[in-house]
Amino acid sequence: MQYRFSEMFLRTLRDNPADAEVASHSLLIRAGYLRRAAAGGYTWLPLGLMVLNKVTAVIREEMNRAGFQEVHFPALLPREPYEATNRWTEYGPALFRLQDRRGADYLLAPTHEEMFTLLVKDLYSSYKDLPVSLYQIQTKYRDEARPRAGLLRGREFVMKDSYSFDVDDAGLITSYQKHRAAYQRTFERLNIDYVIVSAQSGAMGGSASEEFLAPAAAGEDTYVVTSGGAANVEAIQIAPAASIDFASLPAATVHDTPDTPTIQSLVEFSNSKPELVGAKPWTAADTLKNVVVRLTHQDGSTSALAIGVPGDREVDMRRLEAQVYPATVTPFGDEDFAKYPTLVKGYIGPGQLGKHASAKIEYLVDPRVAPGTSWITGANKSGSHVFHLVADRDFKPDGVIDVADVRVGDDCVVPAGTVTQLARGIEVGHIFQLGKKYAEALDLKVLNENGEQITVTMGSYGIGVTRAVAVIAEQHHDDKGLRWPRAISPVDVHLVIAGKDESLFTGATELANTLNAAGYSVLIDDRVGVSVGVKFNDAELLGIPTIIVVGKKFVDGVVELRDRFADQAVDVALTEVVGAVQNLK
Amino acid sequence: MQYRFSEMFLRTLRDNPADAEVASHSLLIRAGYLRRAAAGGYTWLPLGLMVLNKVTAVIREEMNRAGFQEVHFPALLPREPYEATNRWTEYGPALFRLQDRRGADYLLAPTHEEMFTLLVKDLYSSYKDLPVSLYQIQTKYRDEARPRAGLLRGREFVMKDSYSFDVDDAGLITSYQKHRAAYQRTFERLNIDYVIVSAQSGAMGGSASEEFLAPAAAGEDTYVVTSGGAANVEAIQIAPAASIDFASLPAATVHDTPDTPTIQSLVEFSNSKPELVGAKPWTAADTLKNVVVRLTHQDGSTSALAIGVPGDREVDMRRLEAQVYPATVTPFGDEDFAKYPTLVKGYIGPGQLGKHASAKIEYLVDPRVAPGTSWITGANKSGSHVFHLVADRDFKPDGVIDVADVRVGDDCVVPAGTVTQLARGIEVGHIFQLGKKYAEALDLKVLNENGEQITVTMGSYGIGVTRAVAVIAEQHHDDKGLRWPRAISPVDVHLVIAGKDESLFTGATELANTLNAAGYSVLIDDRVGVSVGVKFNDAELLGIPTIIVVGKKFVDGVVELRDRFADQAVDVALTEVVGAVQNLK
Repeated sequence: MQYRFSEMFLRTLRDNPADAEVASHSLLIRAGYLRRAAAGGYTWLPLGLMVLNKVTAVIREEMNRAGFQEVHFPALLPREPYEATNRWTEYGPALFRLQDRRGADYLLAPTHEEMFTLLVKDLYSSYKDLPVSLYQIQTKYRDEARPRAGLLRGREFVMKDSYSFDVDDAGLITSYQKHRAAYQRTFERLNIDYVIVSAQSGAMGGSASEEFLAPAAAGEDTYVVTSGGAANVEAIQIAPAASIDFASLPAATVHDTPDTPTIQSLVEFSNSKPELVGAKPWTAADTLKNVVVRLTHQDGSTSALAIGVPGDREVDMRRLEAQVYPATVTPFGDEDFAKYPTLVKGYIGPGQLGKHASAKIEYLVDPRVAPGTSWITGANKSGSHVFHLVADRDFKPDGVIDVADVRVGDDCVVPAGTVTQLARGIEVGHIFQLGKKYAEALDLKVLNENGEQITVTMGSYGIGVTRAVAVIAEQHHDDKGLRWPRAISPVDVHLVIAGKDESLFTGATELANTLNAAGYSVLIDDRVGVSVGVKFNDAELLGIPTIIVVGKKFVDGVVELRDRFADQAVDVALTEVVGAVQNLK
Repeated sequence: MQYRFSEMFLRTLRDNPADAEVASHSLLIRAGYLRRAAAGGYTWLPLGLMVLNKVTAVIREEMNRAGFQEVHFPALLPREPYEATNRWTEYGPALFRLQDRRGADYLLAPTHEEMFTLLVKDLYSSYKDLPVSLYQIQTKYRDEARPRAGLLRGREFVMKDSYSFDVDDAGLITSYQKHRAAYQRTFERLNIDYVIVSAQSGAMGGSASEEFLAPAAAGEDTYVVTSGGAANVEAIQIAPAASIDFASLPAATVHDTPDTPTIQSLVEFSNSKPELVGAKPWTAADTLKNVVVRLTHQDGSTSALAIGVPGDREVDMRRLEAQVYPATVTPFGDEDFAKYPTLVKGYIGPGQLGKHASAKIEYLVDPRVAPGTSWITGANKSGSHVFHLVADRDFKPDGVIDVADVRVGDDCVVPAGTVTQLARGIEVGHIFQLGKKYAEALDLKVLNENGEQITVTMGSYGIGVTRAVAVIAEQHHDDKGLRWPRAISPVDVHLVIAGKDESLFTGATELANTLNAAGYSVLIDDRVGVSVGVKFNDAELLGIPTIIVVGKKFVDGVVELRDRFADQAVDVALTEVVGAVQNLK
């Protein structure tokens, strides 16, 4: 194929769009790949659609190679199957719901577990039919509270979603591993740098799951690396502190600590009073901070939850939300405090917390607050703290919750070992062992070898297709523009006509024909009245990896070959161009 | 590619689905190409998706060949652009509307005129940028009152929609003709038998439009063929009858005609009374039937409309709906009659109709009710009719409306000539000269050569992609099953293993390898425990045009080659198979 810049529906922009927070968003808009059409909805312009199609083709090839079979479901679906699994309600405000002209409830599907389950139930009835893995590449909908970062968090996006169906756990694990391997091949072919991390299975239900995260500063996910592996920060487990024998511990005592509503002011005050300092100065890690939040449950009811963490840590809201899902979390406001008069803001202590205290606020503590650990904490009286309050001796939490922020050096159980790295990443893939949740809810059974009905066990597996385009752009660009990997580039060669002479236009077309014949698609920048400088800038912005400049040396049979990826340029004789292009990696 | 029947997600069904009214629906379900997922929403199973992809590829190739550029819009769109063109309201209950979590109004787009207009406005500003034609292949939504006939009338379906942008009428006509030609090539390649008929532009606004109708008994559209061309019955114009000089006409007289509420009873009664019969017996065509309907207008208000047609004709509701669009039509019920006491049901005459009569009911008459034509019609009194009532002498209609049913032999102005054929068809394509309606509503202007802002003129062009699959199935099947044209068949060759001997399985695989190497994809029916008869029936049902049977003669190096399209079978030596397959047309 030959595309002429002068005829293409393509306009590059000099300025970053006002709402662009991340490089991929900004560059895809500026280079004329995308336009915003709605909040969280984008229009693919011709060059962008070519990239999307190349990404889609790689994904499809790898799914087919793995033996998965492609189908395609509607996006507009009736409520009933999602009611049966409770996802109609559980998905909350992120589900687009609507009614048809008869008032029947419909949704725009965010994923299709229910429909695939029903389809297999519809067609299959015997263990002999299994295993089977089906997939689709389809437009999905999610009413994001804050659509942002262009394709990274949209409300309408393309996903590849697969589902596996097996008769037993061993089969499920095999299917899961096949998908895992197919995903690894896919992301390698897409030139996406990724890490596989253990994940919380969250909204999907089910037991085991892993995420494919593309490391990127713009990522919304944080993951943790230890010597033993990697995990999403929502899925890690901090090693609990060892229990300590109470016997040798000093008794708890209450002291006036005026004007110490913050941890810092409390530590400073405590260290300034000789009678309060022990063998070594107090640090924030010696204090126990009690944070109270309001949970809103699925049925609309609310409750208060108090979380005790060492004072040098914050409660990580993402970790907390993952732990209490599907309930949602709101910080405690003045109105909430008004309902619990026994809580003294800034001086909340374990004495008024827990299901057995009068306020009946559930009280969960960090794994570091192990039996026998001793703390400075609030005395439930303004300007007053208790020192040497010992867990399990002086107070009994209702349980443990592992939601403090995570730091390098922390000891983990999952993944095992000491945290060596914390990094941000973009989720491009997610694989789940769903187990029997959906099959049970929708009664998907097959006959086993003994003629008995057994419930099928399932996996679900997703790749964010539109998001993958953004991730590639995010991982492959420089300050001049995009830099597409050759397998994904909208066209193979960007041919710049650098001059006004008619012979350059004729020569460029002939060269494009030669490249076409060798199997390369070409975009010719044939614009008239556009300076060479602007053409070069646009070529760098567009990011096609191979740029050929037909310019001054063309009369001598020489063109310039630029490798946008390696950032190198060499002169090449016209007769050698095809070979030189072939040699680029 | 090689597909193994034993592993494919494919089950054929013996019985027609209960809701299947048309062959394409029934066969696509029975052959395992489709499953119903929702009212008007279907899931594509692997073989069906292959067909859909082949159809899509042909359409895309022809659009690209014509120089149209592909883009892709979201389906979930904000209300505002559709409000600006009034389509938010005008589309009525057929538009799926919903709100996001913030209560903002959204729609699921039925077509994208507004968005394409805004996109061109966004990127282009000069006459030099035009003409441009853009298209997308995308999932569309329409809340059909009665989804039916499988893919023929769904609520979620794939369309190819194109839009052209020109600076003047001449440009628009050129763009329109380019699309027309591209559509002709497309439907020829898809083996769709079609006629191009003049159409009403209806909901789209604009001036000229044509439909591509695939003749089929299952079609919802009726079209009319004359010596001068073809038109949708909604778009034809009946030739008005010639005016007649009043001078020689007898005077109107009222007669008692007891118990004659129907045309038939009136004609019989009139012919039974010698004093009422003239030179020849009365026929139904001599009577004037006045049909009253209720119109519901866009703003929710209603009005009554009386339509006078010769008594041998019915009011064609589809033609009437097209004429009064965007108002909708409801038959007059008892409640309506109660509001208009001057109307005597069964004996309604022109005397009480028209804007000047006391009831102020608009009265429009068929073009055959020309000035000077003479009629028997109701006298607005039960059991009483008036004879020799002459149009424009004895009554003045408010105007003409051309909505009677059409018959072979009728004279038309559009298309010119006498009706020689009335037939049903399925709309697979529609091309519109929109003109400036959308550009004006959304202020799409460009600078012309003189530096003046001029409004762009547009066309819009659609192909029903999923519907095209159904049309091909509808036009190419027999009582045994589907018969795919070779360009559209999910795979090229269906290889049936007819026997249990291991050598047949090995030989079939080797033959499939040979066919693959020659560029043919193969489905191997390798099922064990399925009789040869069932395999043959399934092969016919699936409709892959080339069937090869590896059976008894295989030991002698011979297989049977069946041409499903030509319904012929020949024995072919294994060494000749590739050549024989190549020779099939």
